[in-house]
Amino acid sequence: MRVKRVVILGSTGTIGIKTLEVISRFPGRFRVVGLSAYKNSSLFLKQLKTFTPAVAAAGKKKIAFLKKNLPGRRTKIIDAETGLASLAAMKLADIVVIGISGGAALAPFLAAVESGKTVAPANKEALVMAGDILMAEARRHKARVIPVDSEQSAIFQCLEGQRRRDVHKIHLTASGGALGDVPRSRFDRLRIEDVLNHPRWKMGKKITVDSATLMNKGFEVIEAQKLFGLDVNDIEVVVHPEAIIHSMVSFRDGSVLAQMGVTDMRLPIQYALTYPDRWDSSLRPIDFVKLRQLTFRKPDGNKFPCLPLAVEAAWKGKTYPCVLASADEEAVRAYLDRKISFTDIYRIVAKVLRRHRPGTGRADLNDILAADRWAREEVKRILAIGRP
Amino acid sequence: MRVKRVVILGSTGTIGIKTLEVISRFPGRFRVVGLSAYKNSSLFLKQLKTFTPAVAAAGKKKIAFLKKNLPGRRTKIIDAETGLASLAAMKLADIVVIGISGGAALAPFLAAVESGKTVAPANKEALVMAGDILMAEARRHKARVIPVDSEQSAIFQCLEGQRRRDVHKIHLTASGGALGDVPRSRFDRLRIEDVLNHPRWKMGKKITVDSATLMNKGFEVIEAQKLFGLDVNDIEVVVHPEAIIHSMVSFRDGSVLAQMGVTDMRLPIQYALTYPDRWDSSLRPIDFVKLRQLTFRKPDGNKFPCLPLAVEAAWKGKTYPCVLASADEEAVRAYLDRKISFTDIYRIVAKVLRRHRPGTGRADLNDILAADRWAREEVKRILAIGRP
Repeated sequence: MRVKRVVILGSTGTIGIKTLEVISRFPGRFRVVGLSAYKNSSLFLKQLKTFTPAVAAAGKKKIAFLKKNLPGRRTKIIDAETGLASLAAMKLADIVVIGISGGAALAPFLAAVESGKTVAPANKEALVMAGDILMAEARRHKARVIPVDSEQSAIFQCLEGQRRRDVHKIHLTASGGALGDVPRSRFDRLRIEDVLNHPRWKMGKKITVDSATLMNKGFEVIEAQKLFGLDVNDIEVVVHPEAIIHSMVSFRDGSVLAQMGVTDMRLPIQYALTYPDRWDSSLRPIDFVKLRQLTFRKPDGNKFPCLPLAVEAAWKGKTYPCVLASADEEAVRAYLDRKISFTDIYRIVAKVLRRHRPGTGRADLNDILAADRWAREEVKRILAIGRP
Repeated sequence: MRVKRVVILGSTGTIGIKTLEVISRFPGRFRVVGLSAYKNSSLFLKQLKTFTPAVAAAGKKKIAFLKKNLPGRRTKIIDAETGLASLAAMKLADIVVIGISGGAALAPFLAAVESGKTVAPANKEALVMAGDILMAEARRHKARVIPVDSEQSAIFQCLEGQRRRDVHKIHLTASGGALGDVPRSRFDRLRIEDVLNHPRWKMGKKITVDSATLMNKGFEVIEAQKLFGLDVNDIEVVVHPEAIIHSMVSFRDGSVLAQMGVTDMRLPIQYALTYPDRWDSSLRPIDFVKLRQLTFRKPDGNKFPCLPLAVEAAWKGKTYPCVLASADEEAVRAYLDRKISFTDIYRIVAKVLRRHRPGTGRADLNDILAADRWAREEVKRILAIGRP
């Protein structure tokens, strides 16, 4: 196989670090041609020294530090604020791993599909905000989208060799998040540290909070809808605390295919990088006898109202999913900054969605960007007034 | 899609009846061109009137009855004793469903692959006895083998769109059979009726007894080995009492694909008939929330010694698997005729295997047929002497 040339957006984040780990396991099979990181410049410097990409995008304040400390001139350093899209579209690259969170992924995702790259998104927000546009552009430019999110990767794997028209339903599994066993009445008395302590997955802060509210699962419903061209009705969320089954697909003949694995992001990352091949991994295989059981239950939409809220936004379509994602991003930031309580996240996002008036007709990119700005400002207005 | 022309061997058995049920659900999509049945001539007559195949093979004693009662001359009736192979190879046919049990399936299976038909075997014994030869002939004549056994169908489905070289392991699930919860000390005091009462699957008598001894699971290990070109070591049996996961495949990257479905043979039968498409079925979909849990445990090789015995035969290869299947068939017949006890089945088969001396070199069809005769006679000799 020819060497695959990889760009990683967010190389110092959880996904970025794991992606570089996978790449390091296969010397000579990959070449890292572009990296981006916004904060954590000491780790970024180390990565640049090790992988010597052609281009690196960094936060404006870190550029001077990196230039000073990086020997030689093998890596061109650009401003991440404005340079992510050009990094994602760079001629040298075959595959772009999107490991950054939030709406910031939208522009580079679009640039990557428009230039026909294989895109491996771990980011959910870009697809939630503008999934129809991204997937239409991917089809137009023959760009492949291989999701790195473990649930979407599971669905992708279950659909390999199958026909889309034979799909009956998607069963999106949810581990239940950090608060599955905590009564809702206690939610606002929890410390942020408790919320950030996810039982199954080690992830970034934004996505861990979204997992605790189940907004993350709501995003995944919308993401699956866009990635695989499905109807919202055909996507069912089922709580599966062991997080061994990463998702399932039911077919019209009554057959169900499930993809399983240990809870380690290196599995979907490596799959996206080596697709259509599978390579050896250092992951321990599942021992079903030791595992003993896999359990399932219904998600509790009363306890976790963000999930039905997201499904409602998916139903309404247009710019609603974008408003959902953008308002959530701002609300979660306010929560992490200790400005609002845990349950305020839902209240704020629901309020912004209620106030949203989408345009008539299909939403184009300008509509999406306008809705994104409006939703973020709306959250700030609500926060400025005081507690929601 | 062009009409698929189907031959069913054993049309009055469990598999045959269900196959005709599936075919009847899709008027105009299939044509039944050949049927065979050995006993139950009143049901067979009904089937012949409904499906008017070009050829029907019946037990010698039933031919006159059928000829007398079948109006018109649309169906040619031949002797099943000698005619199954020609039925399986008939020019008119596209796909041959093998619903007969035991070694009687070997000749028609071989004839079907040699004439390039798609073969859908529910029968395990033919593959256990002569799997290498059958699969080699299938490759040579570009005949497709799509197993109808639910476990093998599951593996087949999990491998679709995957690469054989990426397979790490097969997890063959076993419901545990009728005696999973019965202590071994009580096995010989059970009535045959208790043994024949399988908790998950309604099947013929021979296979139900084999399920109770777990010999059936041993056959499936060998069957999987032959069908998918695997090493015995790469096949693991795991007890899964709910029988929802029909089997799983682990890949080298740590990913596992599982195929699930309700316990209804119409699912794998329909899959084999419609492959590579999937059509709607009337089967109820799996409700994972209602299901609540899936459990796994290790099979008990001490309690069910037929399973390790079969794995040993698979290991030794050559004519050992054939001797295993042929001796088992005779022993199970003796059990059903109430000549021996339940645990005698194992004792007899183990004794015959111990006495077996395979030839040097690779076993050809003559070696297989000789081993088959020898094993059956050996069982009869043991039975003639008295209790084993």
